[in-house]
Amino acid sequence: MPNERISRIPPGSRDLLADDVRRRREVQSTWFELAHSRGYDEIIPPTFEYEEVFALAAGRDLASRLIRFLDRDGKIVALRADFTSSIARVAATRLRTEPLPLRLSYAGKVYRQATDDGGHHREAFQLGAELIGDGSAEADVEILRLAIDTLTALGINDFQINIGESRFIEPLLRDFPEEEAERVREAIDRKDRATLEGISGSARFQTPMFVSLLDLIGRAEVLDRAMVLAESDEAWAAIARLQEINSLLAPEERARLVYDLGEIRGQDYYTGIRFEIFIAGAGRSVGAGGRYDGLLGLYGRSAPAVGFMLETDAIADHFLRQEP
Amino acid sequence: MPNERISRIPPGSRDLLADDVRRRREVQSTWFELAHSRGYDEIIPPTFEYEEVFALAAGRDLASRLIRFLDRDGKIVALRADFTSSIARVAATRLRTEPLPLRLSYAGKVYRQATDDGGHHREAFQLGAELIGDGSAEADVEILRLAIDTLTALGINDFQINIGESRFIEPLLRDFPEEEAERVREAIDRKDRATLEGISGSARFQTPMFVSLLDLIGRAEVLDRAMVLAESDEAWAAIARLQEINSLLAPEERARLVYDLGEIRGQDYYTGIRFEIFIAGAGRSVGAGGRYDGLLGLYGRSAPAVGFMLETDAIADHFLRQEP
Repeated sequence: MPNERISRIPPGSRDLLADDVRRRREVQSTWFELAHSRGYDEIIPPTFEYEEVFALAAGRDLASRLIRFLDRDGKIVALRADFTSSIARVAATRLRTEPLPLRLSYAGKVYRQATDDGGHHREAFQLGAELIGDGSAEADVEILRLAIDTLTALGINDFQINIGESRFIEPLLRDFPEEEAERVREAIDRKDRATLEGISGSARFQTPMFVSLLDLIGRAEVLDRAMVLAESDEAWAAIARLQEINSLLAPEERARLVYDLGEIRGQDYYTGIRFEIFIAGAGRSVGAGGRYDGLLGLYGRSAPAVGFMLETDAIADHFLRQEP
Repeated sequence: MPNERISRIPPGSRDLLADDVRRRREVQSTWFELAHSRGYDEIIPPTFEYEEVFALAAGRDLASRLIRFLDRDGKIVALRADFTSSIARVAATRLRTEPLPLRLSYAGKVYRQATDDGGHHREAFQLGAELIGDGSAEADVEILRLAIDTLTALGINDFQINIGESRFIEPLLRDFPEEEAERVREAIDRKDRATLEGISGSARFQTPMFVSLLDLIGRAEVLDRAMVLAESDEAWAAIARLQEINSLLAPEERARLVYDLGEIRGQDYYTGIRFEIFIAGAGRSVGAGGRYDGLLGLYGRSAPAVGFMLETDAIADHFLRQEP
């Protein structure tokens, strides 16, 4: 008789077998071949680290989802929730005397408590890369190109990248009280015009830039419209950066990008470009990335950085499953 | 300034970079190519499971070294300490309707508290395979052959496998009080003749089989000597099994094996053959394996099984480092 207590695994965990394994290994192997050819050496950080490593970088949502435990010496450790935090820590500490830029890649599991809706696995495979020590638009383009070429190498043709710029939108949110800013963020993320219009009588909400925000989505002409609306030096610099990126991309790369000045999802540590990757049929984003010029400083070595991440599980399960 | 609190990682953890990563990936990739060609599909169990999964299988030493934590629902989970336990659980539960034999392979990290001497990493890469549902000598040989061919495929030529049989030695230990049995085990493992002779005046220690135990090490002629000494049906069956294995091996495979009837190290769950793998220059065993016909029953599906494990780190660090 099966021992019922034993037959289960913790909620949100799973055993990967057969094709589920094969597809993940294929994705990882395609990824590392490309990453290595571009000079991105793999790094394998520990599976658990002091919780500060993740808590420093995490927004409130991720911080509340860390899987923490007490280490033998009484210190609190957490299972890796995010590769970027661990890699920023390594770049700022063990690699602090290495000349910049550093190009690092990874593939492995991240661990997070399930959300209350129970919809998430607590273990998820991710892959990605970080370009550390280069604050230029060329570095942004290198990462975007790596993301585009990874999807192409995986045989995925129908995808797009929605890209915004933190410096365009963050100044708009700065004057809201914290709780209201959170509601505004969510409404922007959902493109929820009614809620946005109802949320506030604040003067900032009345500005043409804010009123137009949900309409600033599309190809490069959006950047021209946004430049006219830019209300601050930061917002202007954001649009100038996106225009520079647009000019550096090849036409077939440019065709993958949708400029979305209301792009707001993703890690709280993004300070410049921020993007989400959508594949036709996946129903949600399967990757993300952005510039995080403030993160390494938290670990003791100030340096600009930009990176991207793909959800290996989503690609393996939703895309490769459709193979003949 | 570096933040000192952040720059450290938990004791026994490490960041793997550059060549350390490359060598591990090479070992894993060589391994999976061979394993898949022999029909061993990879399985990826969860990183943490209910502690019972590991505690059921673990001897006292491993049980005391589990890295445990409380899950959100108050249950105790542990980081994977041993792939074999997880795979036995999967074979006995999720795969319980799959026809036997099952051939499964793995490569990944195991997690254990450091020993008090601080000499061990708490995260170690392992690779290995399990053949489940076949109790024959042919199955033992299939696993031994896979181990031999893996080392050869990795370019390692100077290695040997010390192999014993649980059923030869376990009956000898059964009559000792538990604590004394532990001391006898350790003395046998260390080939510590003086301690063994001093340990006990018990009649069992006076038998020719026990007195000769430390001398029963060598090529196949050892099995002939041991057969004469065998004091129980179990001991006789043990030697008969080793003789059958010896006859099934090719000469070049046979040359890798050293029969050691005092071979006693390794998992407590071994019930038949048990072996350790030694590479010249490594200074200690870099792998192990054996038959564990009682383990799956603990998870609810009785089936014989045999498997082996290699320490990926030891091979990557000690052997591949010597490359030109």
